[in-house]
Amino acid sequence: MITKPTPVPAKKRTSIGSRRNPETETAVLAAARDLISERGYAGFSVDEVARRAGAGKTTIYRWYPTKADLFIAIYTTERSTFVPVPENGNLIDELEQYTTSLWHFWASHPAGAALRGLIAEAQGTPEALSALRDRFLPDRTADVRRMLSSAAARGELRADEVDAKVALWVGFSWYKLLVGELHDEDVIRSVMMQIAEVRRNS
Amino acid sequence: MITKPTPVPAKKRTSIGSRRNPETETAVLAAARDLISERGYAGFSVDEVARRAGAGKTTIYRWYPTKADLFIAIYTTERSTFVPVPENGNLIDELEQYTTSLWHFWASHPAGAALRGLIAEAQGTPEALSALRDRFLPDRTADVRRMLSSAAARGELRADEVDAKVALWVGFSWYKLLVGELHDEDVIRSVMMQIAEVRRNS
Repeated sequence: MITKPTPVPAKKRTSIGSRRNPETETAVLAAARDLISERGYAGFSVDEVARRAGAGKTTIYRWYPTKADLFIAIYTTERSTFVPVPENGNLIDELEQYTTSLWHFWASHPAGAALRGLIAEAQGTPEALSALRDRFLPDRTADVRRMLSSAAARGELRADEVDAKVALWVGFSWYKLLVGELHDEDVIRSVMMQIAEVRRNS
Repeated sequence: MITKPTPVPAKKRTSIGSRRNPETETAVLAAARDLISERGYAGFSVDEVARRAGAGKTTIYRWYPTKADLFIAIYTTERSTFVPVPENGNLIDELEQYTTSLWHFWASHPAGAALRGLIAEAQGTPEALSALRDRFLPDRTADVRRMLSSAAARGELRADEVDAKVALWVGFSWYKLLVGELHDEDVIRSVMMQIAEVRRNS
């Protein structure tokens, strides 16, 4: 999601035209991450990110035109480190392990607050809605889609059920995030068993 | 969700202490409903509701301490009129009809925008989160819970699966609302069949 910064010699946190100063970018993302953790969505502003990072608002807006873009950047920079994708051939176990890791990640890293902010922001502006639906979601549901498609390839479910199951999984995980119930891990296995299940009567 | 206004003789839209002036209340709710429809969550403010309703901000805040309370009031006043609860003894048909009616209601009434606003607001303040989770949700999931419990009583699913199925249903419907895909009605039946399904291997 983040354009790889082109390394250039630079000391000060100033804009260098269309290329990004990696030092400034790091400072901006760190400030954004801290701010969403400390103050949540209601207290998040680009003004305050700029102040903390010692960066210009114009620079931040050039790199991240909307708050949604900043939230996606916060989320994406941390995500791959903390949520391993299990692959053991048992769909229910895979979904349970993956969902448990993801909820831990959301609950204990700024990414969780960033995703809550992204979803909230998407209720206010069409640009944020498009960023969430068309840019963030396809990337972020790829792992679960792969687990379900592999299970379909093994004959454990029908390929034409995968889309509905991905939607059920996203909806359930978002719902628990949005109502602040990520601690409620006991329900994960039971729900993943229902998502993994094949319909009999169709 | 709304305290029944005590009828009192009143002509002007002014506060009358702890009792509500029904004329003012109607004007406030109508203004809130129009504003969320026209401007969405990002353009919604109590200031503007007060201006349009010709009411005092203090009065509005006394009746609706947070934006979340206003969103719930908008939702609740219209909801019962437009979403019939089917009862025909076929769980999949019931869930499909109910979900289709609900999505129509969300897409074509201010209630949909109000719910999006309520969920967004809940990502910003603990009061709004509690209003959503502890006050709004139990009421608004009662119909689906009843359909599922009746099916359990008929022996079509296990009673201990009802909670997980309610969570799957809420999550899926919210997800489609939050990403602006309520027009995507073709998926409803397939997803409801999966939610209605009993697990075999448990």
